[in-house]
Amino acid sequence: MRTAEQAKTTAKIARGLEGVLAAATHIAEVDGAKGRLTFRGYDIRELIGRVTFEEVAYLLWHGKLPNQQEYIALRDEMNRARDLPPATIAALRELAPHTSGMHMLRMAAAMLSLDDSDVDDLDINANLRRAARLQAQIPALIAHTWRLKNGQEPVTAKPEHGLAAGFLYMLEGAEPSQARVDAFDAYLGVIAEHGLNASTFTGRVVISTNSDMVSALTASICALKGPAHGGVPGPVLNMLEEIGTPDQAEPWVRAELAAGRRIMGFGHRVYRVRDPRAAVLTTAVERMATATGERTLLELTQAVEQTTVKVLAEVKPGRDLYANVELYAGLILHTVGIPSEIFTPMFAIGRTAGWTAHMVEQLDGNRLMRPLAVYVGPYDRTWQPMDERD
Amino acid sequence: MRTAEQAKTTAKIARGLEGVLAAATHIAEVDGAKGRLTFRGYDIRELIGRVTFEEVAYLLWHGKLPNQQEYIALRDEMNRARDLPPATIAALRELAPHTSGMHMLRMAAAMLSLDDSDVDDLDINANLRRAARLQAQIPALIAHTWRLKNGQEPVTAKPEHGLAAGFLYMLEGAEPSQARVDAFDAYLGVIAEHGLNASTFTGRVVISTNSDMVSALTASICALKGPAHGGVPGPVLNMLEEIGTPDQAEPWVRAELAAGRRIMGFGHRVYRVRDPRAAVLTTAVERMATATGERTLLELTQAVEQTTVKVLAEVKPGRDLYANVELYAGLILHTVGIPSEIFTPMFAIGRTAGWTAHMVEQLDGNRLMRPLAVYVGPYDRTWQPMDERD
Repeated sequence: MRTAEQAKTTAKIARGLEGVLAAATHIAEVDGAKGRLTFRGYDIRELIGRVTFEEVAYLLWHGKLPNQQEYIALRDEMNRARDLPPATIAALRELAPHTSGMHMLRMAAAMLSLDDSDVDDLDINANLRRAARLQAQIPALIAHTWRLKNGQEPVTAKPEHGLAAGFLYMLEGAEPSQARVDAFDAYLGVIAEHGLNASTFTGRVVISTNSDMVSALTASICALKGPAHGGVPGPVLNMLEEIGTPDQAEPWVRAELAAGRRIMGFGHRVYRVRDPRAAVLTTAVERMATATGERTLLELTQAVEQTTVKVLAEVKPGRDLYANVELYAGLILHTVGIPSEIFTPMFAIGRTAGWTAHMVEQLDGNRLMRPLAVYVGPYDRTWQPMDERD
Repeated sequence: MRTAEQAKTTAKIARGLEGVLAAATHIAEVDGAKGRLTFRGYDIRELIGRVTFEEVAYLLWHGKLPNQQEYIALRDEMNRARDLPPATIAALRELAPHTSGMHMLRMAAAMLSLDDSDVDDLDINANLRRAARLQAQIPALIAHTWRLKNGQEPVTAKPEHGLAAGFLYMLEGAEPSQARVDAFDAYLGVIAEHGLNASTFTGRVVISTNSDMVSALTASICALKGPAHGGVPGPVLNMLEEIGTPDQAEPWVRAELAAGRRIMGFGHRVYRVRDPRAAVLTTAVERMATATGERTLLELTQAVEQTTVKVLAEVKPGRDLYANVELYAGLILHTVGIPSEIFTPMFAIGRTAGWTAHMVEQLDGNRLMRPLAVYVGPYDRTWQPMDERD
């Protein structure tokens, strides 16, 4: 039985922490009304295509784009870090045949303290260097476990490979084309950061206990794994395959809406206009299509977008439903040739930059994240012997 | 530069989520004013010593104490689960020589989806059974990795071993005395649950994405690892060793306070009186001392408590500083013979019951935990070529 006092208190519960301001951040602004996403004050449209993913990550961590010297130092630190210790590879070899996707990535990321003897050092500069190393290690873990699962040996990236090229090389064991590298690099930059979503928030909660960056990163991965997290591009690709050709888009969309189903890749909790990430990803896919001459899936996606926006405005007027990042993320990953089984891990590669930037920010003036719960259960129960219990 | 609007908004930030009501719970009530901790309406003083840890865990999960049939079914499920799959053991064998403590436990817990083909099934009954299995597996992971690190082979528990006895047997490879089993069982029950602390909150945030129980449990472990989490008994034992004898307590405490240092094991964020867990743990240690005849450390701890409470009342009047759970947790674990390197993992064994109960509760009427951040960084920055950057 709830008392009147309890009932009053439960009315004030911030379910889902909706509307609760949990942090002030210098890292990114998500402007839903204007459809604008800025990283440290740079609009992503200003950045992506002009800078590498490593520059985006450096910007998120340090608040400035790197100069030549800083960029070389960053690349060196990341190159050294992606050679994982033998014990990690040996453990991944045991596990990879039995698991996959985000379960595999959780297990692998949890091992990242193995070659980090100072992992519990929470000094901000130590953690900024650690962020760069973790950023380099996550792609290596994903590539190696993918190969091990498929009966292939891990491949070491070359010193001249940046993060995007190095990942594709470690995954496939062959030099990737520049067009693929550029498209994948743009994808990683676009999704590198997006404010205080559930996985970023999880990482901030964990580091707020003065735990460590490996533990906080593992926990962020655990949260990203949830289907309700959003931003994960897998289902969109299935939808595009099901639609098949541009002329099938309108009947398919109308049938789905008539059946009461959501259309994947449309609508966003924050954006009331087209997701700015969709535009930047479209440009990146356009550029790759120009290089390869292959435009079929791009044109199908654009037809699906135009049709869906038109039909949604007609069927659900005033709801402001536009394309979100998922629509073009699925397209670009597929175009780059990433196996769909590791689409969500790809998201983790990019978002590691934002997660780790938020962890470092949380540690600056840190306070333990410890909300309250109100008790609404029973009172004054007394123990009974086991044979007298219901 | 912050705008006036931003400055106004940042004033409303709930730093550390202090005062934010994040959930209504039926699981436990922490009454700081009365010094009372209840599990599902049972005062822990009513329960501990009369029920096993498995009964406490069942109560937290199901809201009732188990009858004979339910208890047998629970013990069966837990007995089967603690036999870990060969791939897990093989991976632990690779990792254990290179890590320890909570880093090791994070890696090990992350593997717990390996033999759970339905791990992504979020059905409440499936997760209640999963909670029992995870509860049985955490002690096995800790015992096996401890032995592997020390060059010994893992030992399988016997069907007749409950959780406490099974852990000590798996750790040591020898039948533990009943007095040790009872004391360890009481420790686990006392610390099984304590409301919405940072690790429990982390688990609720992760499961709120519709991730899975293994991911959420791993994330809770990542948060418990942080020194600011509290409840971890390691440092208290060092203090007791440093004090040495009861007559040294008063000069030691006065010297520490004069030097501006905190006394470990005293004071609590919530309790304004003696932590009720301290009383229950004292009873358990008393019982073990009666069985073994060894009272030295108990008497030292009691002398330190009496002296410290007296001196604190004199030096910091009105601050209501009393013994907390850490003081007697360190004592009981040491008395049971647990190596201090795995004190924090012991806390994880007990708290897995509360964590998993909260995850199941969160999934009932779940809503994604997604607070807001306010952006306070720069605006309108423009890209410059690398060689023109500062």
